[in-house]
Amino acid sequence: MSRGLFDRLKTDNAALWDAYTHHDFVTGMQTGALPKTAFQYYLKQDYLFLIQFARAYALAIYKADNLTEMRSALAGVKAILEMEMDLHVGYCADWGIAASELETLEEAPQNIAYTRFVLERGMAGDLLDLMVALSPCAIGYGEIGARLAKSRKTKIEGNPYITWIEMYAGAEYQQLVTDMTAEIDALATKRFTEARFPDLSKTFATATRLEADFWQMGLTAEHAS
Amino acid sequence: MSRGLFDRLKTDNAALWDAYTHHDFVTGMQTGALPKTAFQYYLKQDYLFLIQFARAYALAIYKADNLTEMRSALAGVKAILEMEMDLHVGYCADWGIAASELETLEEAPQNIAYTRFVLERGMAGDLLDLMVALSPCAIGYGEIGARLAKSRKTKIEGNPYITWIEMYAGAEYQQLVTDMTAEIDALATKRFTEARFPDLSKTFATATRLEADFWQMGLTAEHAS
Amino acid sequence: MSRGLFDRLKTDNAALWDAYTHHDFVTGMQTGALPKTAFQYYLKQDYLFLIQFARAYALAIYKADNLTEMRSALAGVKAILEMEMDLHVGYCADWGIAASELETLEEAPQNIAYTRFVLERGMAGDLLDLMVALSPCAIGYGEIGARLAKSRKTKIEGNPYITWIEMYAGAEYQQLVTDMTAEIDALATKRFTEARFPDLSKTFATATRLEADFWQMGLTAEHAS
Amino acid sequence: MSRGLFDRLKTDNAALWDAYTHHDFVTGMQTGALPKTAFQYYLKQDYLFLIQFARAYALAIYKADNLTEMRSALAGVKAILEMEMDLHVGYCADWGIAASELETLEEAPQNIAYTRFVLERGMAGDLLDLMVALSPCAIGYGEIGARLAKSRKTKIEGNPYITWIEMYAGAEYQQLVTDMTAEIDALATKRFTEARFPDLSKTFATATRLEADFWQMGLTAEHAS
Repeated sequence: MSRGLFDRLKTDNAALWDAYTHHDFVTGMQTGALPKTAFQYYLKQDYLFLIQFARAYALAIYKADNLTEMRSALAGVKAILEMEMDLHVGYCADWGIAASELETLEEAPQNIAYTRFVLERGMAGDLLDLMVALSPCAIGYGEIGARLAKSRKTKIEGNPYITWIEMYAGAEYQQLVTDMTAEIDALATKRFTEARFPDLSKTFATATRLEADFWQMGLTAEHAS
Repeated sequence: MSRGLFDRLKTDNAALWDAYTHHDFVTGMQTGALPKTAFQYYLKQDYLFLIQFARAYALAIYKADNLTEMRSALAGVKAILEMEMDLHVGYCADWGIAASELETLEEAPQNIAYTRFVLERGMAGDLLDLMVALSPCAIGYGEIGARLAKSRKTKIEGNPYITWIEMYAGAEYQQLVTDMTAEIDALATKRFTEARFPDLSKTFATATRLEADFWQMGLTAEHAS
Repeated sequence: MSRGLFDRLKTDNAALWDAYTHHDFVTGMQTGALPKTAFQYYLKQDYLFLIQFARAYALAIYKADNLTEMRSALAGVKAILEMEMDLHVGYCADWGIAASELETLEEAPQNIAYTRFVLERGMAGDLLDLMVALSPCAIGYGEIGARLAKSRKTKIEGNPYITWIEMYAGAEYQQLVTDMTAEIDALATKRFTEARFPDLSKTFATATRLEADFWQMGLTAEHAS
Repeated sequence: MSRGLFDRLKTDNAALWDAYTHHDFVTGMQTGALPKTAFQYYLKQDYLFLIQFARAYALAIYKADNLTEMRSALAGVKAILEMEMDLHVGYCADWGIAASELETLEEAPQNIAYTRFVLERGMAGDLLDLMVALSPCAIGYGEIGARLAKSRKTKIEGNPYITWIEMYAGAEYQQLVTDMTAEIDALATKRFTEARFPDLSKTFATATRLEADFWQMGLTAEHAS
């Protein structure tokens, strides 16, 4: 396979990928026009999302075939539980969301759908299934961040979402994207067959659709409020 | 515990339970006014739902502590894979949905959310967590069927949904409800503590909300079509 | 792959496979010289073994990618829980082992080692990993039975183990062997890569070694008694 | 429950606990008479053991009900993958075992039996089942270390095993023992019922027996060599 598996998955689901990465919520962050209540709702759900993603990386440690894979997945758990959770709580505070509120949130159905789909797909399948299910989030956010940071259409001054964009466009997150893409390609070397492509592509498609639903959840919550 | 656990869970989540069991979709089946396209959409998703529920009962076999629990869960898998799936395909045919269409359906997010939540809760927790997550569907459908079958407000003649109502009100399904309630209470004897009630009630609440979303999915699909 | 995966695994582990399928315990059944206490100990542990194998097939239902795989695995659960367990209890009775004794047995370490290895390998890996871990037992018993039934060295008259040999040499069990071999080859079509061969061969080797240990357990128990 | 669950489990399995914590292998370390080849064999298997225990703690992250439990389990994974593995490799080098040898070891059946029993019990049950299965190792080693360090019968000078004893008797490991005991008791507050005691005690008994087998494995290997 001369081209990486992640690239093939993205190409095979180009319309869904576009709908997710160019969702109105994303464009709203780019222009700064996204209602703050929409972003706040998203931020709160994202807190719960991180907890489930830490569990997904823990599952990846359990599912790993060797120490290299175990340590790579451990880095994911640590990044979330030891850094991102705290950053997120601080970021939420900047947006007027108290830590105490985060503790009592109810998970939105769109949040449940995506996170449990990933965890369950990973448990039933192998590590490649799990990583493919995780990839639209982990890699997609990096792609969105990098694109918005480069785009001349992106409002910089006075855009309350610029820190979000800069975080995902930043070197640290971009490295994570590079690592994850490389890890999927490495797993593919061992576990990918053409016969699996339809199932893997379906997993990728579902996860991408559920990510778009996650953006939509923010917009809908805003309309509802 | 003089009262059964299932009863306590229902009482603790009375408003959610009512919203689920008296959903507009249900009332639409009762009066016959439910748009056929809504029901057809529901039927198709229910086909995919059954497959995931068979997996959930298979998980219950794996999680069982003894042969009695294993055999009880096996009855659930067999009921779905050897009977209900075929009945469902036949029933779909009556509603103009070809078997071939069922093979290529895309799972609705509401379907993914509920089924994967159940499977994942069951895998992470114990058999009691799994059964509590399953119960709003398994027992709720029996409660809805029985209530509609008895109600004088239910349209009988010319109501295209009367066979659905009669199936879930029927002796065979009602026995399944009795068995499942008894099984949850039996598991509770072994595994329930008051300290677990908040978590179990949260699991029950989430599953009940996701069941209401499943009805809503049918109505929304109708409006969309 | 012109040759089936199971054949390759067997060839790659020829010495271990031979040590398992030609173990002294097996030869003892062939000649009738196996001490009865050794066989009785084996029979009792085999009862507990069947329960774990039913769980492994239940796991295979959960792990299946489609209805065909689910139904195939369900056949395995049913065969054990609805038929083999009862046959086994009856067979144990013929050997003077009461059903009540079977209920209170302690699992031998060799039994724990094999069954939990299979279950855990299957949970951490995919359905192919699970089936490869199951295969030395499921297929190996058929190979042993068929060989002993054909061999002129096998004592027929007065051999108390002849019913065991005939059961595994019989058409019904041989069909199961054919099915299982075909299923592994079918799974391989989808999930096998050369890069996975070392890991799969290691799984097969470990399972085969643990099967030989299971025979040895019977002999050792006899010496201890 | 005025007394802690771990204490009850130990009392309920006093003979097995004694057989494990006072095994000839342990006494051999105390007196210094343990053959070096036995200890070397044990050390090598312990390397593979650590990898499986890291997976068990990763499973505990996945199974946790809240962030506190997740972080506690993460500490276990990190302790092993980021510290103990390296210490162990260094310690093995002191005993003449090259790192390269550790990479190609074959797992002993006694190693497979214990580690896969723990992982599988934890997956099928809840977090309390998992922690109870882990406890004979995690807590027992601390008890052995503390007892030997205090005992006047323990040879100090010229005892090649004194560093092993001091490590497990040391403040750092003893804190881990205290934490684990407290965690089991905390989990018990939520998930323990008297009705579960027989199953939990059986899990504890099995794990304790398999730990004794692990010591025996070292002695037997020595006799074999």
